[in-house]
Amino acid sequence: MPKLSLPCHADVVQAQQRINSYIVKTPVLTNLALNQQLGCELFFKCENLQRTGAFKFRGATNALLKLTQKQRQQGVITVSSGNHGAALAHAGKALGINVKVGVPTNAPAIKRQNMEAGDADITDIEPGMEAREAIIAQWLKEGESHFIPPYDHADIIAGQGTATLELLEQTDGLDAVITPLGGGGLLSGACLACDDTEVQIFGAEPELANDAWLSLKAGERQPALPAKSLCDGLLTQVGELPFAIIQQRISDILVLKDEDTLKAMELIWRHLKIVVEPSSAIALAAVMQNLDVFHGKRVGLVLSGGNVAAQPESETLRWSCV
Amino acid sequence: MPKLSLPCHADVVQAQQRINSYIVKTPVLTNLALNQQLGCELFFKCENLQRTGAFKFRGATNALLKLTQKQRQQGVITVSSGNHGAALAHAGKALGINVKVGVPTNAPAIKRQNMEAGDADITDIEPGMEAREAIIAQWLKEGESHFIPPYDHADIIAGQGTATLELLEQTDGLDAVITPLGGGGLLSGACLACDDTEVQIFGAEPELANDAWLSLKAGERQPALPAKSLCDGLLTQVGELPFAIIQQRISDILVLKDEDTLKAMELIWRHLKIVVEPSSAIALAAVMQNLDVFHGKRVGLVLSGGNVAAQPESETLRWSCV
Repeated sequence: MPKLSLPCHADVVQAQQRINSYIVKTPVLTNLALNQQLGCELFFKCENLQRTGAFKFRGATNALLKLTQKQRQQGVITVSSGNHGAALAHAGKALGINVKVGVPTNAPAIKRQNMEAGDADITDIEPGMEAREAIIAQWLKEGESHFIPPYDHADIIAGQGTATLELLEQTDGLDAVITPLGGGGLLSGACLACDDTEVQIFGAEPELANDAWLSLKAGERQPALPAKSLCDGLLTQVGELPFAIIQQRISDILVLKDEDTLKAMELIWRHLKIVVEPSSAIALAAVMQNLDVFHGKRVGLVLSGGNVAAQPESETLRWSCV
Repeated sequence: MPKLSLPCHADVVQAQQRINSYIVKTPVLTNLALNQQLGCELFFKCENLQRTGAFKFRGATNALLKLTQKQRQQGVITVSSGNHGAALAHAGKALGINVKVGVPTNAPAIKRQNMEAGDADITDIEPGMEAREAIIAQWLKEGESHFIPPYDHADIIAGQGTATLELLEQTDGLDAVITPLGGGGLLSGACLACDDTEVQIFGAEPELANDAWLSLKAGERQPALPAKSLCDGLLTQVGELPFAIIQQRISDILVLKDEDTLKAMELIWRHLKIVVEPSSAIALAAVMQNLDVFHGKRVGLVLSGGNVAAQPESETLRWSCV
């Protein structure tokens, strides 16, 4: 196997300069009630308030801005069940780059709508890795275009790392950072962002999609699982590049049950007053289920996105006020 | 009737200096999709992210900080169905001041819990103005304590005005500001904050609780209505002091149906990824129902609070991801 060429801390710094005028500098929220309840100081980096409602807009913008003029004209292709596709679509729209996305038929409706709003050229595909690879192979055969995968790509990783780099700038003296872990783009980016610091890095992974945890313990990347979780953004296998970075720098991967992630969502709603998807709330669940690990510490949590629908059956949301 | 002594712009500036280290400087969010859809530039001042989940913490903190040492020792009393009581309780807890609240039995559970979390001394009372006045009279007879009403009070109004003062500092060149309108503390505070500017001020009031609109048109304060609205924070009659200020400075009061407020809540959830209560969303409904008034303008909306429960029947929130 050829040695992988991994992005480094400097790539994250450069990505930040490159994408700065395109992204939202998202706020960091704190909450006294949660701190008192959990016995640590939490700093929530609100990437749910990022453009397209997820951190993915950072990596997508970085990857598109690094294309040559010729590649921009040819357009880009990807496969995505949601946030990456929407991010690429909207970043492409802003930069005048055509974006084609293969979307599994089981993708959440709200995420598909986000892609459509970004004027992406959408093709329905079957769920699963096989259909994903097939559509990309077909498109590459049909004509010149540039494939931008959702996480296994140096420019994507460097872009996602800017979320944690910003968090470090906005918050003094963090002891630890926790990010959700699916394909590993956000977490490996966090590893690079914290490269020259003492900050501990943790990934939070659903129990029935814990291929990265298994890989870390085994010392090598394990096959994809038949993953099952409410965290629809975290079902994918950890990528090759992300895993190589994570393995070098991570403190631990924490594995969470969906029921605990739902409890964390409720706490975030109640105390922080923001909308996050389950794939984000898992980072708070990681604290709640490991109070001893984080006791007395200053902990940054990257809330990755907020693309969750309220009640699919209802025309309008039925909010309760009692 | 004796001439009212009204607070002024300088009182808001002084309140800001007084409460600055106690409150959250809440973020101002913008959203391209909403701007494009509605044809104006919107700036959302997120007081739902304020301590205790509502702007009320500003006025309560200002009022408590203005008490004499003796008054602080005697403690304070109020009546509230929610956000004012919770704000006073938490501000009192921080400053070591005892807080007694009369709470109507129909108050939202989430708001009652917020008061309990602030260690308020709670007494259940019947809904309606009569029971409110009776409990205050009783408490004042029983012993020395200081009554801090929810809006009809110069220090409360000046404190609430800091939300709009901050918004003006955070946002260049606003043409207009819209706030929800119930008792009128937030709106009259906005009037004072904008006193030396050209910014237009609008109040947003529920159709079946539109006593302030009726009062404005009649030129004098009208009696309380048997108000009915999902906006549980906006059911009260506009206060005497707030109305006097509003009448001098307001551009207009916009009256909204609950069904339009619910549509606005859905848009805020979907695009801004934050949790707001109906009493806040009404400000966006005011834009959506008056597109001609705000076309091409830069409009600040004060989102007043986020204390809304998701599904009262369920133990945990049942979020949908499809």
